Amino acid sequence: MSRLSALATYRSQEPLILPQVLRRLTSAVAVAGSIIPTDRSSVQQLVELFPKTIEQPIIRFVTAAKPPAAFLPLRIGILLSGGQAAGGHNVIAGLFDALKQLNPNSVLLGFRDGASGVLNNHVVEITKKLLIPFRNQGGFDLLGSGRTKISTAEQLSLAKQTVEALHLDGLVVVGGDDSNTNAAILAEYFLSTGCPTRIVGIPKTIDGDLKNDDIEVSFGFDSAAKTYSDIIGNIARDALSAKKYYYFIRVMGRSASHLALECALQTQPNLTLISEEIAAKQMTLQNVTEQICDMIATRAAQGKHYGVILIPEGIIEFIPEVRNLINELNFLLSGTEVINGDRVVIDELTEGARHCFLRLPEAIQKQLLLDRDPHGNVQVSKIETERLFISLVEQELQSRRRAATYFGKFSAQSHFCGYEGRSCLPSYFDSHYCYALGHVAVLLVSTGYTGYMCCLQRLTRPVEEWIAGGLPLVSMMWLEQRNGKVIPVVRKALVDLNGEPFHVFEKARDDWIINDQYLNPGPMQFFGPKDIVQTTTRTMRCEAGKHIGHLTT
Amino acid sequence: MSRLSALATYRSQEPLILPQVLRRLTSAVAVAGSIIPTDRSSVQQLVELFPKTIEQPIIRFVTAAKPPAAFLPLRIGILLSGGQAAGGHNVIAGLFDALKQLNPNSVLLGFRDGASGVLNNHVVEITKKLLIPFRNQGGFDLLGSGRTKISTAEQLSLAKQTVEALHLDGLVVVGGDDSNTNAAILAEYFLSTGCPTRIVGIPKTIDGDLKNDDIEVSFGFDSAAKTYSDIIGNIARDALSAKKYYYFIRVMGRSASHLALECALQTQPNLTLISEEIAAKQMTLQNVTEQICDMIATRAAQGKHYGVILIPEGIIEFIPEVRNLINELNFLLSGTEVINGDRVVIDELTEGARHCFLRLPEAIQKQLLLDRDPHGNVQVSKIETERLFISLVEQELQSRRRAATYFGKFSAQSHFCGYEGRSCLPSYFDSHYCYALGHVAVLLVSTGYTGYMCCLQRLTRPVEEWIAGGLPLVSMMWLEQRNGKVIPVVRKALVDLNGEPFHVFEKARDDWIINDQYLNPGPMQFFGPKDIVQTTTRTMRCEAGKHIGHLTT
Repeated sequence: MSRLSALATYRSQEPLILPQVLRRLTSAVAVAGSIIPTDRSSVQQLVELFPKTIEQPIIRFVTAAKPPAAFLPLRIGILLSGGQAAGGHNVIAGLFDALKQLNPNSVLLGFRDGASGVLNNHVVEITKKLLIPFRNQGGFDLLGSGRTKISTAEQLSLAKQTVEALHLDGLVVVGGDDSNTNAAILAEYFLSTGCPTRIVGIPKTIDGDLKNDDIEVSFGFDSAAKTYSDIIGNIARDALSAKKYYYFIRVMGRSASHLALECALQTQPNLTLISEEIAAKQMTLQNVTEQICDMIATRAAQGKHYGVILIPEGIIEFIPEVRNLINELNFLLSGTEVINGDRVVIDELTEGARHCFLRLPEAIQKQLLLDRDPHGNVQVSKIETERLFISLVEQELQSRRRAATYFGKFSAQSHFCGYEGRSCLPSYFDSHYCYALGHVAVLLVSTGYTGYMCCLQRLTRPVEEWIAGGLPLVSMMWLEQRNGKVIPVVRKALVDLNGEPFHVFEKARDDWIINDQYLNPGPMQFFGPKDIVQTTTRTMRCEAGKHIGHLTT
Repeated sequence: MSRLSALATYRSQEPLILPQVLRRLTSAVAVAGSIIPTDRSSVQQLVELFPKTIEQPIIRFVTAAKPPAAFLPLRIGILLSGGQAAGGHNVIAGLFDALKQLNPNSVLLGFRDGASGVLNNHVVEITKKLLIPFRNQGGFDLLGSGRTKISTAEQLSLAKQTVEALHLDGLVVVGGDDSNTNAAILAEYFLSTGCPTRIVGIPKTIDGDLKNDDIEVSFGFDSAAKTYSDIIGNIARDALSAKKYYYFIRVMGRSASHLALECALQTQPNLTLISEEIAAKQMTLQNVTEQICDMIATRAAQGKHYGVILIPEGIIEFIPEVRNLINELNFLLSGTEVINGDRVVIDELTEGARHCFLRLPEAIQKQLLLDRDPHGNVQVSKIETERLFISLVEQELQSRRRAATYFGKFSAQSHFCGYEGRSCLPSYFDSHYCYALGHVAVLLVSTGYTGYMCCLQRLTRPVEEWIAGGLPLVSMMWLEQRNGKVIPVVRKALVDLNGEPFHVFEKARDDWIINDQYLNPGPMQFFGPKDIVQTTTRTMRCEAGKHIGHLTT
């Protein structure tokens, strides 16, 4: 998008501040720290798979007393992988400005449409002029993104050909857990085949599930949470004003419920389902439905026939019986083209799975049978869980009415907080975080590190005080069963039921059920008081100080 | 909502500026102007129905050279009617502050849940303290709203009893065309029965269809348009980044397409359907579907398999064949409880209507037959037109594929811009507009006028320069057939196909089809540059200067 609205124009011209250590890049030096122990249960396999990158130290950048010698020009490539997250363009801007600061003859190359751009050598040189309308803007449209991975032997070899042909000193991979897993594999492959291109990962995902003791947050989470919370706060105010509807709001977040939890903390709806809690309590669909209906009944007894319920997008895979049903369907349907053979498949399900299937509303049954990906798998993300629960709640309330245990009204509206949160203007936090991440990536490449993820810490403090470094990708990995195979992956962080964000939510939520404690955080602001513009998420504030933060140890 | 977020707290404390003439209310005097001619074709019936209020002059307030004598305390009641619109609480704040300025012993009473509060004498006194957390906030929750109308003889008499029991000098009705029609009837009834309570209307509706030569805009339109445009701009950026989906976005606006048109001007999507144009061109469902598919095919020829389409909520009633079908269904189904008798009803449709019905997707057929209001009428607003068109477009593209005239991909996502636009924080414009409207209402009551709508003009200029007055409600009325009866109503303004906003759109839209000219206006801002914070809608800016503006003639 090269045409900008009035606000977008202001944003594009807004200068960004940097953490102290990143201001004079030519004075920054890397200090090697300790080696983070690898996940114990996976260590043996990880040593075999990553012999060259497994024992790397954590790196922290500090400002040297005397400026070092001049830098040679660097050539760095960047690719954006997976779903959009606000701030991607600022990573590119950060890389560009940092590269030019080290040496004006440095070159930044952008790969088109994600990893496929590396495989096809489809590349564009990033120039100052090209970047102008993309600074502080949302979306990934300067380069595009993609879901291709570089994993087969042929792909690895193709990637090597490309980076060698382009004489790249570094390749920056912007992505989530999968893409950073891929970055780790690539780093190991390049090292073991003598390719000098360093690989650096940048943590991106609005879902917020790429975090750990050192990575405090992935970029895009803050902006998405603010965008959704604005909408949810508005809808809650509408519920309270009209007093007519229950709003069932599905919140994006493919696996983990971080976004739903964060939105709950920001807006205080009557009920928020947390997938991780449902899984831990081994709840059934009926249990969850009853929980919602009990809340509705409690409120009806107080004359309240309205409310707001948040549902994390990925919920159904956390309900054991549904997960089991989906697994069975994936097995039975794989490779087949079922259109009229539904009946046969249903008969082949185990009794529990069949029972679960038959209780589902017809529309959801159809989605499970027909909406499958190219591998024959059910497309869980396409299932409109907000509508599923409206339908199940209607059934349950109807049966309570027949049993004369419920007498209230019930009228529902559904809403999906989705795509609008991925490509919004990046918040103050994400704008600065991404710009700084770009700088860290350049430092890692220029100081010769590979197989690292860029790391900034103390993110709830003012930008000036952030500290910067790099974290070995392999240190974040463990072995996991995915699609039937045990493979090494960067570990996804689900909502920690013993963590502070969940504790804060847990303590408050009973009050929210009955009393309407809705908060309306309002639209994201870019001008005005610091405590409005510069503040980060509740999740990050709850977790601040709880991180081990190896950079400082 | 009495708990406020950080931003909401700042908003609640933000002082509002007033138009010059409303700053010293004790010096404001009413100057009677001309009499606006009543709609010619309706004049005879309107004279019969409104003998006492039909020949009232337009009023303009000006600042007198010498301040007039002290004011006696006034007692005013207020009711909020219909759907939420951002700024309702500022109308109340404006009334309160103006009343207290004229005389600190004045009293403001708020009726609960709309007109039913008047019928039940359910009232709360508005105090300074009560108002604190509601200033500059969205929603109608301080009082609630309702859809009850005061129309039968018994209701009129009950309303009179209430206002007399409360010794009200004035009753302020905040609502759309229907509620202001009701206000006109009430004013006439009170005058003819010797009740001294003056009736004043305030133009409210996010739909923007309560406007005319003098009423430049209804409150709530600006905030809703900004809220939706933010979301649409984000989604457009996502479409451009992911290049995977067509987003079909339904935009609220029960009848007129003003909101869809305004959002189109703010965000420049590839295609925006305008109901009024479809009606004018007598387009069929198939025509509209083909128009969308032609756009998709044109873009596919350029390798673009993504895009954004805006669909006004009320569209299907503007497609003549669907309107006809709905009318027939309403007639056939009225008073019946059809659940399994679908077949019979379909057989009774005329051939054209049956053909139209059978071409609809199954889900929409079901909605038409089952989702009916208490009068048996089809609930048009519940029909998800964005899904209807996705389904029709899929069918049409499939048949083009079979005919080998289309070879592109097509994958769609649906979105509804709805409830989140009604109860958002009011924009700078709506905050000030509503606060000033409250002041005008007090002036109209204090100077003894009844049957008037509050009127502010020159709204695209700075607030200081706005001029204020009152417009006789009957001057905005004509006779219209509604639900089979010819009744006097305040005229609804549909999108004018000869008006400047549509012209601007029309000139630009061919370019938008092929070239991605998406704009992302971003979230509403409350701090920062004037051209970001204080700007109004494109529609209003296009129409500025085109208004007759009787206040100044």
